[in-house]
Amino acid sequence: MKYGIALFPSKQIQDIANSYRKRYDPHYALIPPHVTLKEAFEADEDRIEEVVQELSTVAKDTQPFTLMINKLSTFSPVTNTIYMKVEPAEGLMELHQKLHRSDIPNGQTFSFVPHITIAQKLSDDEHSDVYGSLRMISHEFEETIDRFQLLYQLENGSWTVYETFRLGKG
Amino acid sequence: MKYGIALFPSKQIQDIANSYRKRYDPHYALIPPHVTLKEAFEADEDRIEEVVQELSTVAKDTQPFTLMINKLSTFSPVTNTIYMKVEPAEGLMELHQKLHRSDIPNGQTFSFVPHITIAQKLSDDEHSDVYGSLRMISHEFEETIDRFQLLYQLENGSWTVYETFRLGKG
Repeated sequence: MKYGIALFPSKQIQDIANSYRKRYDPHYALIPPHVTLKEAFEADEDRIEEVVQELSTVAKDTQPFTLMINKLSTFSPVTNTIYMKVEPAEGLMELHQKLHRSDIPNGQTFSFVPHITIAQKLSDDEHSDVYGSLRMISHEFEETIDRFQLLYQLENGSWTVYETFRLGKG
Repeated sequence: MKYGIALFPSKQIQDIANSYRKRYDPHYALIPPHVTLKEAFEADEDRIEEVVQELSTVAKDTQPFTLMINKLSTFSPVTNTIYMKVEPAEGLMELHQKLHRSDIPNGQTFSFVPHITIAQKLSDDEHSDVYGSLRMISHEFEETIDRFQLLYQLENGSWTVYETFRLGKG
């Protein structure tokens, strides 16, 4: 089965992200607005129970941290993806690093640019228009993140939460 | 904020349910296939942390149980909702009862008919057609449920998991 790890920001941020995603993100219906902490990886039922134990240890050894968003940005020209840029603060980067230890299975790995996608798969013209208008709006948030989630993917591409891990608790 | 409690069946059952929901359930994109254990209720941030403690105690005091599905059924003529009928086995009914203790906030309460919705808001004609064809297909599943989830609702009507509770563990 295909698993992934993500954190969900507060309802306030999710609602704002969704107001854009509804129009500009074809993955709108597949998962709530999130920060991907670990890209999709394969694991069978036995292996995932070991992974759960490892994630529980990581969670216990990591303290809640502050999530900061200051602006929108874009991955263009690599892809026409617009996102809320999440500051690469120490706590978040530390958690990401721990989730990529060699004893936890890895899927595709990119250099980690923490973000919340709000638009993707746009044409070049759409991208210019949407980014041009959205970047003028202030997007500043600061909140505490105290948990992350292990999810699995269904055949339709959507994601179901399998387990929640609480930072500082496990 | 509006919260609810649900359990998600296995990926296998969710995939089958989604194959119907995609066509027949307008809530398809709002939440993965699930058994509602507690209808939506209101709680503020302080109250929900107390509720989390109470749910953790309920989970610790409840053992994993077998979820059995034997057939499809319908709520017609009350509503044109078609569902996988979940057997009201002891473990499930006990969990439901504990989640409706007076110290956990309650929303709307119905008599508990455990089910996984696969079609809703159909016209009378659609309902007859769909139920007539789907009921001929065998729908028999048996699996162990070892967790339930507390979710909150976003402004677009979709649900995000807030926390996972593991039966026998908390």
